[in-house]
Amino acid sequence: MDMKSTILIALAASSLMAGNLANDAKNAGLVPIPSSTTQLLKLTDNPKNPITNNKVKLGEKLYFDPRLSRSGLISCNTCHNLSEGGDDGVGPATGHMWRHNPHHLNSPTVYNAVFFGSQFWDGRAKDLEAQAQGPTLAHPEMAATKEHIVAVVKSMPTYVTEFKKAYGDNVKITFEKVTDTIATFERTLVTPSPYDSFLNGYKEAMTPKQKEGLKTFIQIGCASCHNGVALGGEMGAFNVTATYKYMNVGDFKGDKNGMVKVPTLRNITETAPYFHNGMIWNLKDAIKEMGRIQLGTKISDKQATSIEAFLGSLTGKKPHMMIPQLPASTPSTPKPNLN
Amino acid sequence: MDMKSTILIALAASSLMAGNLANDAKNAGLVPIPSSTTQLLKLTDNPKNPITNNKVKLGEKLYFDPRLSRSGLISCNTCHNLSEGGDDGVGPATGHMWRHNPHHLNSPTVYNAVFFGSQFWDGRAKDLEAQAQGPTLAHPEMAATKEHIVAVVKSMPTYVTEFKKAYGDNVKITFEKVTDTIATFERTLVTPSPYDSFLNGYKEAMTPKQKEGLKTFIQIGCASCHNGVALGGEMGAFNVTATYKYMNVGDFKGDKNGMVKVPTLRNITETAPYFHNGMIWNLKDAIKEMGRIQLGTKISDKQATSIEAFLGSLTGKKPHMMIPQLPASTPSTPKPNLN
Repeated sequence: MDMKSTILIALAASSLMAGNLANDAKNAGLVPIPSSTTQLLKLTDNPKNPITNNKVKLGEKLYFDPRLSRSGLISCNTCHNLSEGGDDGVGPATGHMWRHNPHHLNSPTVYNAVFFGSQFWDGRAKDLEAQAQGPTLAHPEMAATKEHIVAVVKSMPTYVTEFKKAYGDNVKITFEKVTDTIATFERTLVTPSPYDSFLNGYKEAMTPKQKEGLKTFIQIGCASCHNGVALGGEMGAFNVTATYKYMNVGDFKGDKNGMVKVPTLRNITETAPYFHNGMIWNLKDAIKEMGRIQLGTKISDKQATSIEAFLGSLTGKKPHMMIPQLPASTPSTPKPNLN
Repeated sequence: MDMKSTILIALAASSLMAGNLANDAKNAGLVPIPSSTTQLLKLTDNPKNPITNNKVKLGEKLYFDPRLSRSGLISCNTCHNLSEGGDDGVGPATGHMWRHNPHHLNSPTVYNAVFFGSQFWDGRAKDLEAQAQGPTLAHPEMAATKEHIVAVVKSMPTYVTEFKKAYGDNVKITFEKVTDTIATFERTLVTPSPYDSFLNGYKEAMTPKQKEGLKTFIQIGCASCHNGVALGGEMGAFNVTATYKYMNVGDFKGDKNGMVKVPTLRNITETAPYFHNGMIWNLKDAIKEMGRIQLGTKISDKQATSIEAFLGSLTGKKPHMMIPQLPASTPSTPKPNLN
């Protein structure tokens, strides 16, 4: 066999292997972010609250506006920081008056949250629209009231005009309209990554080490919970084969059925600390702990390194956005309350 | 005289009036932001810390990076929010562990701070480079240590690479280098407004009401302190003819000579509340109070309305910037400390 044939066979084999791996991934329930905008919109849109350009632009401002909070200091972006992987990088979520989440729960990332089957660690909100109503009012977070939020928004003519543009001249600006608009913006926070390119057929998008890691990830069984577009986002049992080593920090025990929302693995390299109570900082430690408590598997250091390499391929391209310029407060804007 | 001549004479008179007003403004010490980039750079550059593109880009990231703070939650942008007129919109600056500024001092805007003769309400820092060293370390603000900041920056290879790009391969990343870089970014936060266009010769840039207000502003004597490019930024005596009505809030009495930094009037419509302790929320009230305590003048409601109209012409165009994407923390990045 001449050199040329050898190379051709080797290329075909490598291509076949990549093809097989992509198939294996799909068979394991892994779904890429589609490369077609139409297909993406099908996955991200909410028929009851359709994505439009005007709503997204307005929602972005509201997302960044700390005046929606009681103190005037905390915006959605404070805990779900779009510069930092969509979360805050601290253990327990920390909000109004520096209060920590009473259950020591960690702020999840907002990036790709649109792909989750439910929202919050206990899955109590069915979508982003419902989710956005939580932190705005929760006392240890933004600590606002519905009336405060509506009054803030209505006090600024620019916002009123933009609500009319987004919803028509007869729009009634309500708390729900504000949170729906924020949710619409959040529906666009999708971060396609090399992994998606790979599953969408561009075989060289992932490095050999990342591909190897994906294989390990599937073989060990991680995809039994971390699947779908988000590699997570659905409810799953926790502490299946052993108890999480920091289970005693905070009192979270899951929803009423003892289930917990499986966190997305997208951008996981940017969203330490890990687990519901944010007690593990190192990704390899988190991988091993998951193997122990969820799969009853001792994940070796080599396997953890390999999986970690794969997870690196999930770090996605963030939407390019301008720093929004918020309308100026007016004399009728409710004053911030630092207490 | 025919219609055409009448119109021509009227136009000439109006143009002459505008010309006179621009001259009056210049005679009163008011200086526009130059329209030429070269001229602007002359005003904003620091020969000891020259503005370069790589430093600005890196400085922007550092400005937005909350991991420089002890808690990991507070960045420069928290109190000097570029979406909100460059400040925070609350009374006393509020930082680490929700502590307020011990003197009840209000966060000044960072926009156009490059034009100030000195920084801080007591003018104790001579420039932005010196200023940036304050809040990063101050306990009620970012509460970091020099060592923490250097360790955070050095722990992320992207930052190290960008420091090399900005300062050369032999750069030593020190606390001062970090704050210098932030200051370089801040030197670009300049917001030219209709007022500048007017002073630069575009006579129709300001509305007739704004021009009227500028006249009143000069006649009443506001420009005796609010002058230069920043319409403020130098030290001035305070409580000259009467005592500020909220003087009892906080213990600030000025610098050792009883002088206070005159705040800029640029973007003043976006930076309520006003005065060193942020106790006045309404711009007209602030104008009247200034007349009473600084000039011994009772400013009428009509005059205050007129001056307020002029101040509206100082609301400037903010630099267009992307929301920065910060490098991911690494295992060696110091952990945040919420206490």
